[in-house]
Amino acid sequence: MSDHTGDENCLAWAARDPSGILSPYKFSRRELEADDVSLRITHCGVCYADVVWTKNRFGDSKYPLVPGHEIVGTVKEVGSNVHRFKVGDHVGVGTYVNSCRECDYCNDGLEVHCEKGPVFTFNGIDVDGSTTKGGYSSHIVAHERYCYKIPDNYPLASAAPLLCAGITVYNPMMHHKMNQPGKSLGVIGLGGLGHMAVKFGKAFGLHVTVFSTSASKQEEALSVLRADKFVISSDKQQMEACAKSLDFIIDTASGDHAFDPYMALLKTMGILVLVGFPSEVKLHPASLNLGSKTVSGSVTGGTKATQEMLDFCAANKIYPEIEVIPIEYINEALERLVKKDVKYRFVINIEDSLK
Amino acid sequence: MSDHTGDENCLAWAARDPSGILSPYKFSRRELEADDVSLRITHCGVCYADVVWTKNRFGDSKYPLVPGHEIVGTVKEVGSNVHRFKVGDHVGVGTYVNSCRECDYCNDGLEVHCEKGPVFTFNGIDVDGSTTKGGYSSHIVAHERYCYKIPDNYPLASAAPLLCAGITVYNPMMHHKMNQPGKSLGVIGLGGLGHMAVKFGKAFGLHVTVFSTSASKQEEALSVLRADKFVISSDKQQMEACAKSLDFIIDTASGDHAFDPYMALLKTMGILVLVGFPSEVKLHPASLNLGSKTVSGSVTGGTKATQEMLDFCAANKIYPEIEVIPIEYINEALERLVKKDVKYRFVINIEDSLK
Repeated sequence: MSDHTGDENCLAWAARDPSGILSPYKFSRRELEADDVSLRITHCGVCYADVVWTKNRFGDSKYPLVPGHEIVGTVKEVGSNVHRFKVGDHVGVGTYVNSCRECDYCNDGLEVHCEKGPVFTFNGIDVDGSTTKGGYSSHIVAHERYCYKIPDNYPLASAAPLLCAGITVYNPMMHHKMNQPGKSLGVIGLGGLGHMAVKFGKAFGLHVTVFSTSASKQEEALSVLRADKFVISSDKQQMEACAKSLDFIIDTASGDHAFDPYMALLKTMGILVLVGFPSEVKLHPASLNLGSKTVSGSVTGGTKATQEMLDFCAANKIYPEIEVIPIEYINEALERLVKKDVKYRFVINIEDSLK
Repeated sequence: MSDHTGDENCLAWAARDPSGILSPYKFSRRELEADDVSLRITHCGVCYADVVWTKNRFGDSKYPLVPGHEIVGTVKEVGSNVHRFKVGDHVGVGTYVNSCRECDYCNDGLEVHCEKGPVFTFNGIDVDGSTTKGGYSSHIVAHERYCYKIPDNYPLASAAPLLCAGITVYNPMMHHKMNQPGKSLGVIGLGGLGHMAVKFGKAFGLHVTVFSTSASKQEEALSVLRADKFVISSDKQQMEACAKSLDFIIDTASGDHAFDPYMALLKTMGILVLVGFPSEVKLHPASLNLGSKTVSGSVTGGTKATQEMLDFCAANKIYPEIEVIPIEYINEALERLVKKDVKYRFVINIEDSLK
């Protein structure tokens, strides 16, 4: 039987105001419809977006706000039209739970670019008009199109960060053809996104250089993440020694930083992909013109690439580095995330702590 | 007989100091070597680069400085190894006259990206150690690799602007696959480069919108250049009406301007190619991230693309709009160029005026 039978069928933790402090909260998920999957959430990754919206950084937060868009769990019920999933399956839900399903982008499996805009997993407007609520909760109901199969034997806790951090770097890497063995990749910033970029880069056979402001990350970058090279980005000499050596750069740093010094590290026709959100991107035009270089932005990926990425991670035994926490630790975790004090992604063990 | 027999074998006009004022000048071209072509110059286009270096804007000008890198003429002598050209052929020389001819870029016909740097047609260092001197002169000696065949019946005066303005827009248009009929192109700025981008765009079957600060250019843009649409870029309402409508933008404006309003006009995964040199390129990261958009730079093209572009122009009857002037008019022409008072490229009639 479904538990969509009355009020307050879902346990959660929510922020109530821009302090961003989360506390226990109960609400009702919508009824299961014919194309929907209802998922008992086992784990939810902690993304910087959770900080942004719990603290109302963009001024559009609707409280109470239940964050979380790196959701994994097991199917507890499926609608009558659902054939891709059955009860008990391991399933993930990422950053969006709906889209128009009619536009060219949706038809191409690029729902994140839906012409009407995708419905985000939290703080969006759901089909029933209610505000969407994310994965810091006991269950979620979503149209099957926006649910992903977690490959067999892939640990659920490890799968969570793939749904945002993973796809956010995998998608532009594939789009810009970074999966060419022997090419060179620079990764700026070594957080949730950056450490996944290193792992994908190595799986693609790239020579990977990590750029970080923090010397303390060197040993782990080389020994645990298997990067080929580590450069302190504030060290002008180290930076200049890398001039024109990189085919690609993935820039995951959301803190403000200069772009010209990195553009100088790209070879002719090199590409820098921005996946972070610094306050601005400022370049000297020569950084682009001389050497015909490119700066491209990217933001997560469509359902097609997301499933492909999950399958790629399972096939290549790529696992995010995670710190599993109980929901009671979430406020401290968010504080530590702001201070970049995490290696490299918090994952909330929902099933064992949210009761 | 060659006239490379003594001093001062070449008539020219040169700037003597950063005033940039040009006056008659005589110097000696180097001797013809086995792989060289000696060209009697008939026409030379006037590029903004001529202003930049005659006035020492980059602080690296070597005086006396003979500008001009849109050079066409007839072959008057060839070296013993030259087989691609014979006396009397119509030949062009563009922005560079040498490169290492050994690196990967040179081997791919991308000499403009030569690892040792191409030798620029003026203000560069020639094989004999002398400073290269450009096309505001009676003849030039260049390695045949950097000479282009001007297709039969293509007017020499019209060919000149293709060697810099033409290839500078054609090259990124081809690189970014803008030759897809039915796609939409925005062209920012309607000078020497911009008007060629419109012509190429129409030849490729694109829907072309011109963005200009100057309403006075509207009629010509639509009737002479055959653009499909004209937008006053300072008119916020007109700009907003174009939101998310363009697949590509070629930005030829070298004056400072905001980039975010143009990025908003690109469709998802749209590309803005920068070929101008504003003082900086500043973007909000959302202009790149949301919609996975791209900003790419470009600067002229290799020998392979240059010859291809010349042949394409001949086959498709694409001719730059030019104002032919005598060399005596050059100082006034450069002043008018700075004021953007030219439709759309000055071409010096060298053969009839430099005597």
